[in-house]
Amino acid sequence: MSAQKADTGHSIVLGKDEPLRLDCGVELKEFKVAYCTYGTLNADKSNAILICHALTGDQYVATPHPITGKPGWWDDMIGPGRTFDTDKYFIICPNVIGSCMGSTGPKDINPETGKPWGLSFPVITIPDMVRAQRMLIDHLGIKSLFMAVGGSMGGMQVLEWAATYPDRVFAAVPIATAPLHSAQNIAFYEVGRQAIMADPDWCGGNYLEEGKTPHRGLSVARMAAHITYLSENSLTQKFGRRLQERESITFGFDADFQVESYLRHQGSTFVDRFDANSYLYISRAMDYFDLAARHGGSLASAFNGTKTRWCVISFTSDWHYPTEASRKMVRALNGVAANVSFAEIKSDKGHDAFLLNEPDFIKVLSGFMAGAARHRGIA
Amino acid sequence: MSAQKADTGHSIVLGKDEPLRLDCGVELKEFKVAYCTYGTLNADKSNAILICHALTGDQYVATPHPITGKPGWWDDMIGPGRTFDTDKYFIICPNVIGSCMGSTGPKDINPETGKPWGLSFPVITIPDMVRAQRMLIDHLGIKSLFMAVGGSMGGMQVLEWAATYPDRVFAAVPIATAPLHSAQNIAFYEVGRQAIMADPDWCGGNYLEEGKTPHRGLSVARMAAHITYLSENSLTQKFGRRLQERESITFGFDADFQVESYLRHQGSTFVDRFDANSYLYISRAMDYFDLAARHGGSLASAFNGTKTRWCVISFTSDWHYPTEASRKMVRALNGVAANVSFAEIKSDKGHDAFLLNEPDFIKVLSGFMAGAARHRGIA
Repeated sequence: MSAQKADTGHSIVLGKDEPLRLDCGVELKEFKVAYCTYGTLNADKSNAILICHALTGDQYVATPHPITGKPGWWDDMIGPGRTFDTDKYFIICPNVIGSCMGSTGPKDINPETGKPWGLSFPVITIPDMVRAQRMLIDHLGIKSLFMAVGGSMGGMQVLEWAATYPDRVFAAVPIATAPLHSAQNIAFYEVGRQAIMADPDWCGGNYLEEGKTPHRGLSVARMAAHITYLSENSLTQKFGRRLQERESITFGFDADFQVESYLRHQGSTFVDRFDANSYLYISRAMDYFDLAARHGGSLASAFNGTKTRWCVISFTSDWHYPTEASRKMVRALNGVAANVSFAEIKSDKGHDAFLLNEPDFIKVLSGFMAGAARHRGIA
Repeated sequence: MSAQKADTGHSIVLGKDEPLRLDCGVELKEFKVAYCTYGTLNADKSNAILICHALTGDQYVATPHPITGKPGWWDDMIGPGRTFDTDKYFIICPNVIGSCMGSTGPKDINPETGKPWGLSFPVITIPDMVRAQRMLIDHLGIKSLFMAVGGSMGGMQVLEWAATYPDRVFAAVPIATAPLHSAQNIAFYEVGRQAIMADPDWCGGNYLEEGKTPHRGLSVARMAAHITYLSENSLTQKFGRRLQERESITFGFDADFQVESYLRHQGSTFVDRFDANSYLYISRAMDYFDLAARHGGSLASAFNGTKTRWCVISFTSDWHYPTEASRKMVRALNGVAANVSFAEIKSDKGHDAFLLNEPDFIKVLSGFMAGAARHRGIA
């Protein structure tokens, strides 16, 4: 990582002039948005790229994570000369509200009570997250984003941005995402929520006040979700039935198999960096996401008159948000004569492919960006 | 249900003459096998059908369940004139060892300590289950089964029966199953086990002695597994994003969606009828199942010289044990010139299709049975 891009983050308090009106009816009159930026905003403020993160992602997209010390989740993608070229673009990655890495969420102190919000934090939605981001973009003086881009829940935010603020998104790249949560999506996240809430250390959501952490429940939730991020094939290739540092099965309940050890590790490391209530809130926001439902049941209506340049990307082995969900978006966009390209990338890495260095993915994304930048007049 | 088939079950103590030698090295010198039978064994004992149940199934295949009162899990299939015609066949359905419905398992009293086995119960395998069944079949004086049939883990037992006792299985019908657990299969069951073991009321496996039940953990385990039993499509058709007895979302963590309510119900009713440690043990037996590995790495070797008539059945939308797993078996059987037919049944009901009244499934099974019965000389 170059020194140039190692932004360690900013935080801004918003809502004082204009409250954040949440879908649930609550108004937040003071809330924080934490974000990282990379590169420099140009004179006419036309080169801003908003990167939207996924459920358990954060603003540290190209900055070492302050807790784990690991490189940013798209570290390879961002920097001078890279896909998101910091010599050319100004990159903004905000932490979503409801999360736990600096933007206001359930682990923060409710100013009215002086205690952590816990379950008294209002339930937020994807549109709420995007409204908060819009206020950040206003604050930064950016009238129109060059691009909004993100994978998974990040892609939902991209859809929401382009649907709600069509004049403020020049190009939109929703990746490995869906315009709504399917019954199966909801089912998996409900298992995770039930696992968290089943943990006595969750304390009805008040674990911070009680000095506890529902690490067992959150770990199980992460394990269940993690399976959906990988394809069956990638699990077979990565682990198969190989044993974990032993010659033969032990006839017991230890992690005999590598895949068990891997999943346990995923669960136990996750709890060090993520807040259980944030997991409840953000997964709920995803379940509630149904773009068509808010536009009279028609997804096309959500994009009516869109002038945004679209690039929809899916991965063949993604069964969490399968290609069919992306096709739905493309059909809706075609239905309103949008400028849309669509690429289904061949990959056996499952949903997580969007986080990995898949050459065809990078090629499609780079090509689309180069074309859009020319149209935008970005040097 | 006809009175004729309403067997309420039998139980036999085995092991006194010949101990049950488990794969883990332990010998059980006294163990129970609980089973139900339907129909009458004919004079030459040639009409016996062994039905093997799945992970959370039991011997009450055509008998109301003693706890839930629900009809048997293949109730529609069994009776006079039905697929498994009780006027023609003698049906035996044993509860697997390690389970909790009467056959010896971790909730029983260890005769050597006078306390419930709990985690001191030896870890059992699919071959162990089949060895116990073989002793039951010996006890009933049956030299050769007309047929061994079962879905899911029941199908694994069928494979094991035919591989280990080839002369004692005239016909074998493994349904919606696999010759080994894949990394993804292991992953899902590991999530379930971790959910159970994360519940403080599990008490390190000693919950019976402590007077507790890890109902929250077991419920989460069931919910996670249940998702894998249904196809994405069937979840969408059954529930979609429909709300549960409400007009709009509540901006909370109640079961707003029908699919959430359904899953919670699946979890909470399951704990009334199933033992958490049995869930650990039986899921472990499935993870350990790898028929080829025990035959020099060659699945074909497991079936070398087989004279059994085979009918392998899979379902198009089963992603838990997908058709590809059945194809593997068929290729192996073809490789040893076995008498094998294979049917992939078109169904959108997912893995659970084998428990449902899928007309094409019934047709294939009935057709195969009729042919096999003619060859066996069963009137």
